[in-house]
Amino acid sequence: MEKRKNLNQQKFYPRRKPNDEMIFGRQTTLEAFKAGKTLEKLFLQKGARGEIMEELIASAHLVGTPVSLVPIEKLNRLCRQTHQGVVGLLSLIEYSSLHHMITACFDQGREPFVIVLDHLTDVRNLGSIARSAECAGVDALVIPAKGSAQINSDAMKASAGALNHLAVCKENNLYEICNYLKESGMQLVACTERSEAIFYKSDLRGPVALIVGSEEYGISKELLKLADQIVKIPMKGNIGSLNVANASSILLFEILRQRTI
Amino acid sequence: MEKRKNLNQQKFYPRRKPNDEMIFGRQTTLEAFKAGKTLEKLFLQKGARGEIMEELIASAHLVGTPVSLVPIEKLNRLCRQTHQGVVGLLSLIEYSSLHHMITACFDQGREPFVIVLDHLTDVRNLGSIARSAECAGVDALVIPAKGSAQINSDAMKASAGALNHLAVCKENNLYEICNYLKESGMQLVACTERSEAIFYKSDLRGPVALIVGSEEYGISKELLKLADQIVKIPMKGNIGSLNVANASSILLFEILRQRTI
Repeated sequence: MEKRKNLNQQKFYPRRKPNDEMIFGRQTTLEAFKAGKTLEKLFLQKGARGEIMEELIASAHLVGTPVSLVPIEKLNRLCRQTHQGVVGLLSLIEYSSLHHMITACFDQGREPFVIVLDHLTDVRNLGSIARSAECAGVDALVIPAKGSAQINSDAMKASAGALNHLAVCKENNLYEICNYLKESGMQLVACTERSEAIFYKSDLRGPVALIVGSEEYGISKELLKLADQIVKIPMKGNIGSLNVANASSILLFEILRQRTI
Repeated sequence: MEKRKNLNQQKFYPRRKPNDEMIFGRQTTLEAFKAGKTLEKLFLQKGARGEIMEELIASAHLVGTPVSLVPIEKLNRLCRQTHQGVVGLLSLIEYSSLHHMITACFDQGREPFVIVLDHLTDVRNLGSIARSAECAGVDALVIPAKGSAQINSDAMKASAGALNHLAVCKENNLYEICNYLKESGMQLVACTERSEAIFYKSDLRGPVALIVGSEEYGISKELLKLADQIVKIPMKGNIGSLNVANASSILLFEILRQRTI
């Protein structure tokens, strides 16, 4: 029974790929936080106590790194070396400040072009959207700090390196951040199948943030309520639903088209 | 040395997923051909002789099924049962006749809308394009009989079932088939980065076949020469290259837009 349970749990903690960088050990990980390194995720041993453990949790919360309390077996699977109950996944990219990006755009006399990914879960979709966004001239890609596909080596590969060029902003609260974008004078454009407004007939010019929903649940209700325009991609055929990366690409390049003509 | 060689070769024969249907055995496979079943690929043991083997090869050639002659170890890995040197992968879909589709479109007074995939190799891209194509109202998706990503369970999954709804045509010679489309009165539109014609400023209305190139090599020279229009998707940013499924989606929905307005 115990063995069976472990086998089931194993699915949730796949072995990391060699190029997903990892740090481990209590002091080493704490020093990484102090040195300003960005961690994608922090795994701590369930039930482990001590001053450093508390400091690690506080440091993670301070910078918005998600913390998972896991059994020691999971840590052993993640890391074969002496981890002392602490394993962290280092970010493959440096995150940017959205506020800084938006201010810089307006200061330079440019109209910001942003894409917000509302809890996408597939790393390949994330990477693929980043690639299209970079090619469409997007200024910033926004993802939530929790509940999003991680920027791991698979996302990086799917992005064809675009994640190294694009400003990626990790935000704790997408509602607050969309509200901030709206108050900064940007129009929020959401895309769902349940709309009558056809995307290419809608005015998508000016400072714009495109909101894209998750593969399973679409865009959350609270973000939809904030949207200035809700548009749809008209379709033929039977299945009536595009892959999120393909839909995003169609919209991003329509926005670029409207900005250009 | 022998062992090492085997390990290397193993990469090229991944274990099939349970839902990629397989048949094996000499007589069974021959009967499958006689019953008109479509095989995605036929693996035969290198050096195996006999009347039935010759009949199998002839049957495969007749319907355009690619044949691979492989060592027995590969067959053992593909199939754990008594395969008698013969393993076939059954198609997950029924292929359609392009000639029939085009004739039917014209007969119904519709302008055919076709997409030709010039030796795409990634099954997820293939599935993803099929999904967008079905949603854009494409009448037929054309792939080459050899050198293309196979329609396996991964492609099927990436297509979100679209491969069950869309007419997929497998053709031995893409040059001949594009020539046939052109002679049927369809305009051939190719998309490459090396063009000055912007896709949304080009007239893509009427009977149209969109040609999309492979991930690595793009569109072959001979197909480019046949094209009536070569268009590009204008880009910003540094990487300057879209994923082929995203690029295809942008073009397919631009064609749908031009057909609609």
